[in-house]
Amino acid sequence: MGHLHEDMREIAQCGLPSALEVMGERWSFMILRASFNGIRHFEDFQGQLGIARNILSNRLHRLVENGILKREPVPDDRRRVEYRLTEKGIDLLPTLVALRQWGEKYSARTQSSLTIVDARDRKPIAPIRLHAADGRPLRYEELDWEESEKVGK
Amino acid sequence: MGHLHEDMREIAQCGLPSALEVMGERWSFMILRASFNGIRHFEDFQGQLGIARNILSNRLHRLVENGILKREPVPDDRRRVEYRLTEKGIDLLPTLVALRQWGEKYSARTQSSLTIVDARDRKPIAPIRLHAADGRPLRYEELDWEESEKVGK
Repeated sequence: MGHLHEDMREIAQCGLPSALEVMGERWSFMILRASFNGIRHFEDFQGQLGIARNILSNRLHRLVENGILKREPVPDDRRRVEYRLTEKGIDLLPTLVALRQWGEKYSARTQSSLTIVDARDRKPIAPIRLHAADGRPLRYEELDWEESEKVGK
Repeated sequence: MGHLHEDMREIAQCGLPSALEVMGERWSFMILRASFNGIRHFEDFQGQLGIARNILSNRLHRLVENGILKREPVPDDRRRVEYRLTEKGIDLLPTLVALRQWGEKYSARTQSSLTIVDARDRKPIAPIRLHAADGRPLRYEELDWEESEKVGK
């Protein structure tokens, strides 16, 4: 990817800024991570993340507004609400795992006590990396940019 | 991953918080993205990202401090400095691409004019997803948590 260069004026059209508008803030990732852990109620997010209630309330609102979580009445007690991942939210798992793996690789802290595994063979999942359309893993040096029209995207 | 649950008290030991301390802020990702585009000089980051000089200066300092960029004199003009990606910085590419692909999938805006391709066959890279240790792609439902000791990590 040495001779890679993208016209930075095009940045406003790429997916990154819109993703960062929603997720470019550490609490949003931590809330998402808690959701993947099965946390659904305001009090549980609050107690376990140790986040201030007003910030949590604001971030949950934004995540719902952006379609990452959905806010629904609890079936057994309709006065309470729960926050569940949408498909759009679940689609953030590769980003979350990639960021977590990077943090684990370079953090001086101890490893996480739990590891994400393939439920079938109980082996840890592979490190997230880039692959070609035919499945070959690609290194950074093997990448380049191409005009989207030419690749028929 | 339906019956996935991690003791949230262990969160402090996982790689995510340390990653977010460095990258949990939208400008850090935008600067990183510019670096992957070959941008190396303060003035170029500033001009092309449209970021305020004091914020840019602060973020570059943090990225250098955290070993994601390295600050070096320009070989031809040693009064100037340039910011280049380190190995640790390059290792953030999967996170960046995963976030970008997610943003493109769900953004109402037009697609990016440029696409990342395999330099060999000029085809767009595959969407980033999770894979098992043996290379099988894994869906969310196929994941689970396991204690790290048991998986010999």
